[in-house]
Amino acid sequence: MKEIRIGLLGLGRIGRLHAANLAHSVPGARLVAAADPYLNEEGIAFGQSLGIQRMSRDEEDIFAASDIDAVFICSPTATHPDFICRAAAAGKHIFCEKPIGLELGEIDTALEAVEKAGVKLQLGFVRRFDRNHKKVRDVVASGRMGEPHLVKVCSRDPEQPPEDYVAVSGGIFVDMMIHDFDMARYLAGSEVLEVMAYGANKVDPFFAKYDDVDTAIVMLKFANGAIGVIDNSRAARYGYDQRVEVHCDKGCVQDGNERIDTSVISTAQGVLYEKPTWFFLERYNDAFISEAAAFVDAIQHDHKPPVDGQDGLMALLIAMAAKRSLEENSPVRISEIQG
Amino acid sequence: MKEIRIGLLGLGRIGRLHAANLAHSVPGARLVAAADPYLNEEGIAFGQSLGIQRMSRDEEDIFAASDIDAVFICSPTATHPDFICRAAAAGKHIFCEKPIGLELGEIDTALEAVEKAGVKLQLGFVRRFDRNHKKVRDVVASGRMGEPHLVKVCSRDPEQPPEDYVAVSGGIFVDMMIHDFDMARYLAGSEVLEVMAYGANKVDPFFAKYDDVDTAIVMLKFANGAIGVIDNSRAARYGYDQRVEVHCDKGCVQDGNERIDTSVISTAQGVLYEKPTWFFLERYNDAFISEAAAFVDAIQHDHKPPVDGQDGLMALLIAMAAKRSLEENSPVRISEIQG
Amino acid sequence: MKEIRIGLLGLGRIGRLHAANLAHSVPGARLVAAADPYLNEEGIAFGQSLGIQRMSRDEEDIFAASDIDAVFICSPTATHPDFICRAAAAGKHIFCEKPIGLELGEIDTALEAVEKAGVKLQLGFVRRFDRNHKKVRDVVASGRMGEPHLVKVCSRDPEQPPEDYVAVSGGIFVDMMIHDFDMARYLAGSEVLEVMAYGANKVDPFFAKYDDVDTAIVMLKFANGAIGVIDNSRAARYGYDQRVEVHCDKGCVQDGNERIDTSVISTAQGVLYEKPTWFFLERYNDAFISEAAAFVDAIQHDHKPPVDGQDGLMALLIAMAAKRSLEENSPVRISEIQG
Amino acid sequence: MKEIRIGLLGLGRIGRLHAANLAHSVPGARLVAAADPYLNEEGIAFGQSLGIQRMSRDEEDIFAASDIDAVFICSPTATHPDFICRAAAAGKHIFCEKPIGLELGEIDTALEAVEKAGVKLQLGFVRRFDRNHKKVRDVVASGRMGEPHLVKVCSRDPEQPPEDYVAVSGGIFVDMMIHDFDMARYLAGSEVLEVMAYGANKVDPFFAKYDDVDTAIVMLKFANGAIGVIDNSRAARYGYDQRVEVHCDKGCVQDGNERIDTSVISTAQGVLYEKPTWFFLERYNDAFISEAAAFVDAIQHDHKPPVDGQDGLMALLIAMAAKRSLEENSPVRISEIQG
Repeated sequence: MKEIRIGLLGLGRIGRLHAANLAHSVPGARLVAAADPYLNEEGIAFGQSLGIQRMSRDEEDIFAASDIDAVFICSPTATHPDFICRAAAAGKHIFCEKPIGLELGEIDTALEAVEKAGVKLQLGFVRRFDRNHKKVRDVVASGRMGEPHLVKVCSRDPEQPPEDYVAVSGGIFVDMMIHDFDMARYLAGSEVLEVMAYGANKVDPFFAKYDDVDTAIVMLKFANGAIGVIDNSRAARYGYDQRVEVHCDKGCVQDGNERIDTSVISTAQGVLYEKPTWFFLERYNDAFISEAAAFVDAIQHDHKPPVDGQDGLMALLIAMAAKRSLEENSPVRISEIQG
Repeated sequence: MKEIRIGLLGLGRIGRLHAANLAHSVPGARLVAAADPYLNEEGIAFGQSLGIQRMSRDEEDIFAASDIDAVFICSPTATHPDFICRAAAAGKHIFCEKPIGLELGEIDTALEAVEKAGVKLQLGFVRRFDRNHKKVRDVVASGRMGEPHLVKVCSRDPEQPPEDYVAVSGGIFVDMMIHDFDMARYLAGSEVLEVMAYGANKVDPFFAKYDDVDTAIVMLKFANGAIGVIDNSRAARYGYDQRVEVHCDKGCVQDGNERIDTSVISTAQGVLYEKPTWFFLERYNDAFISEAAAFVDAIQHDHKPPVDGQDGLMALLIAMAAKRSLEENSPVRISEIQG
Repeated sequence: MKEIRIGLLGLGRIGRLHAANLAHSVPGARLVAAADPYLNEEGIAFGQSLGIQRMSRDEEDIFAASDIDAVFICSPTATHPDFICRAAAAGKHIFCEKPIGLELGEIDTALEAVEKAGVKLQLGFVRRFDRNHKKVRDVVASGRMGEPHLVKVCSRDPEQPPEDYVAVSGGIFVDMMIHDFDMARYLAGSEVLEVMAYGANKVDPFFAKYDDVDTAIVMLKFANGAIGVIDNSRAARYGYDQRVEVHCDKGCVQDGNERIDTSVISTAQGVLYEKPTWFFLERYNDAFISEAAAFVDAIQHDHKPPVDGQDGLMALLIAMAAKRSLEENSPVRISEIQG
Repeated sequence: MKEIRIGLLGLGRIGRLHAANLAHSVPGARLVAAADPYLNEEGIAFGQSLGIQRMSRDEEDIFAASDIDAVFICSPTATHPDFICRAAAAGKHIFCEKPIGLELGEIDTALEAVEKAGVKLQLGFVRRFDRNHKKVRDVVASGRMGEPHLVKVCSRDPEQPPEDYVAVSGGIFVDMMIHDFDMARYLAGSEVLEVMAYGANKVDPFFAKYDDVDTAIVMLKFANGAIGVIDNSRAARYGYDQRVEVHCDKGCVQDGNERIDTSVISTAQGVLYEKPTWFFLERYNDAFISEAAAFVDAIQHDHKPPVDGQDGLMALLIAMAAKRSLEENSPVRISEIQG
């Protein structure tokens, strides 16, 4: 099987995670170059430890390289649409972290560029590759439980992010709940038509400074007649709470959290289990590898990536609708955002 | 301690449940009379098996009896306000099944009658007496988890009720979710200010004939700034699904279902646990006894009943707001209903 | 159905438990008399609160009463064989608490008396009536899991008993593990042929004073070729630990502890569940009622009691063999004890 | 940190597992050579896929190589003592799979050679590196639960091995339960003084042909006064059942199985969870990596390996004592084997 030669853009937290996976754990992938405008000695050392041959501060070194088959876009969200366009123009397949962008016009342009270039585009909705969520979806999709009625997603980060992160995050719906919007579509097997959002500021007062909430519940109506609900908190305190549930004609399919270990300590004070794994690195580590492997596989076997540009767009539209719903305290149809 | 002599009104399913508990399991209670307009030989035999001395078709036989201290109103909802007024006028303490009534004007009149007569009124929100839900609420109320952020209630009946029941039920919010509205207030320790409802018809087509839904999600805003969500299904299929969860400053408090037994069968096909207990008789049996005991205790020690007329009214107002919200696809403030 | 009129012997802890159940919760039973040589005013008041009409210090008042159909023997173990003989001679059916006795000769005499009189004798192995253990046994007995290979019983009391109790208890095997020997026979559906016992003194030094151990493991060989193991501790500290497990051809059937409630508290310190229910009153309360109901039913419908004198004898023989095994540090065959 | 250059002996199932881990996942390790007398083209291709530079049919190519710091002995058990001696003579550190050997004299010779050469020897008791078992042991070793009273280990393979494997396995105690004997010592923090074994043939008749059993229970006495029990089955059917439990002064510490996923499917048929992970590759994958990393770390930092030759010897002695106990139906002291 042809080895896929990859260039990676952006060496922040998520970029390094993908870099390490591509270097060590993804069969058929070869990470040959990385670029980051803030590349420094520490970054170069990181790249060398992974055996990355070419390190640069200029992303054009990636786009222009004729020996690179595919790019991983792990740079800040604002750069996503432009980088997608440039990678597509260079005929490279594209893995892009979520969200696909922040402006609908730019995203349309990027998706058209992908379409025209005939390259593959996969969006980084990593949770679809989690064995637990995937099992729930597969059981529902198999039809053995009948039609879905209710879709529930609970997603809580362990601790609030720093204030400077929140300031530029785009808000809870675009930054955090966007994963859950994609998960809801994935579980329901149906498009979201309308949302209604409630929010609260309970975790930390600084969220309010940025017109943001730290606690939110969003209800959803799906095209297949099912309804759903997502709840988010920026601060679970007990780890990363990631649970999904689909109630169907014949019963309920759900999953539970992965725990740090399976220990049980029984004393006069009670019966103590371990907490859920701490955060996305711990919980979704295997899923990040599966996601990258699926991308490589889609290129090698020339099939459709399992999460594409349209999925990236839809999750963003739902997030935008949720944001407007919270602002207006009124249900918002996705078609109102698209229009 | 003075024995409390009780007359019971209505010998349907819930009336007989209370009758059996009062006869056998509630210390300090003595069930001396029962009335039901449809009393027949089978009903008389039931009463005799419990040692009820006086059986009648006329409720006035209860209200007029000078040796009766308290009444249990287990008759159809439409009779509740009138029976409350008549019991109050007769100076009898009142236990009334939920909902307290269906018309706000009648309920106001009934609550005024109770107030004026100085008798005790307890509403039948039995789930407050379930050891699991009560534990969750007690942990939250203790303050050890900090402030509540998110309140979640999941309540699913095992199978849909017969169509003729649905026809006169008043709809899912007043008939079924009213328990969850009370639970949400109980868990949050705060009043509900606003609701937004989504509904679906997925269980059985007949619900739509009565402008009713069989699947519903309602979001809530509380006066203390917390937000909440309730989901209901008329047909879990796997038993009675009754779970609550409160996410707070310091973490999450939740409960799980009681199971039929604790057996675990591990084979090549998977690991099989028993289902949740089947329905409210199985799940809330102990809670019904505790509820009646609390009522008797409130009379004997002359203190406020743990669930009073105001609780009955608030849950009904929230249910009415949810119904309107679903009809108008718009959030509805409780004050709009009250006004 | 004929009401079974019952006289109860012994108003200690277990006697009062049976008395309360017979008075309130066992259909078809009527507790008409009780006798205890230490009966005092407090005991008389207890009896009156249950509506027991005749209270006495002389057990002969029970045996001689022509209106009594059956007796509950809840007196000290040493009295069991004699009371069984006297009840049988008086033609009364017999429920006898475990153990059936302490001397094999006396027990043989008692069982012969029962046989000759043609009365029913049921032994108080209450755990057979626990819904969880019974479910495990029923699944195994159904044959759907194939043949049993391994039988495991874990039984730990919450706290050690007082020293004066231990002094006269007969030791851990006869006093405590006898329940588990019966459970092992019940689960395996086969007789025990041989045992090997290990013991330790870890809970409290006073056990050693009475040649007793507070911690023990006993291995068992069954006639059907399966093997088994029981572990006991006098002090779990976290409640009453009661778990059984049978590994079979097709997999494993086990049960878990009942918990005080189903609450789950997740914080930065871990995920805290409630402890198992505290002791036998809490865990086996429903089973005590089922046990008494099964006895009454066996009399009313004239069928064999579900736990009979032979079961009482076998469990005692195994306990005696375990005791000898510990003393001799050698496996002991049950036939060596019987011989 | 100095890179540790490793040569690997034996490219069977366990050898390949270690090879893949050393090549990809163990920091500081460099797998430079491998030898196997049955090396064929397929084996060479396997080695090349991992980047192993030198492949050979002659183990002497490993022992004689001056650039190799350490060896992994993954060859058949009978070769272990000889290979340990030759590696030690060559001044190479040694990782040796369990069991350390089958003949006590050879093992003594090997351990003396290691001692004399001053090289490090680590035994492959991988389960000590499982996060769940390690957590149980760490909690016990911390002393926060007080003294251990009871140690329980349950270990069941998913399916019986092929008959030709059993024929040369050395029997259940040396082949399978040896892991559990090491685990028992590890959990108890104390040496085993005596064992008593019961066995059964329930899984497959062919075990009896080789004087072997497929189902076994072994009781243990520890030097610290605690007692323990291990149960083994060659065929769980529902996956790899791996549970440990230590009951202590203040309560119980245990772990549970890792499951294939956390899905829960609730229907009218029951509540279905996933099975335990299938076998040791799935369950102990992370532990194999940690084990190898600990070995590399011990060399790099010149400290004692966490599992040494003495641990290997003790587990074998206990296994031999268990085998004799089963044959003689009598408890056997470890000192009887050692003598």
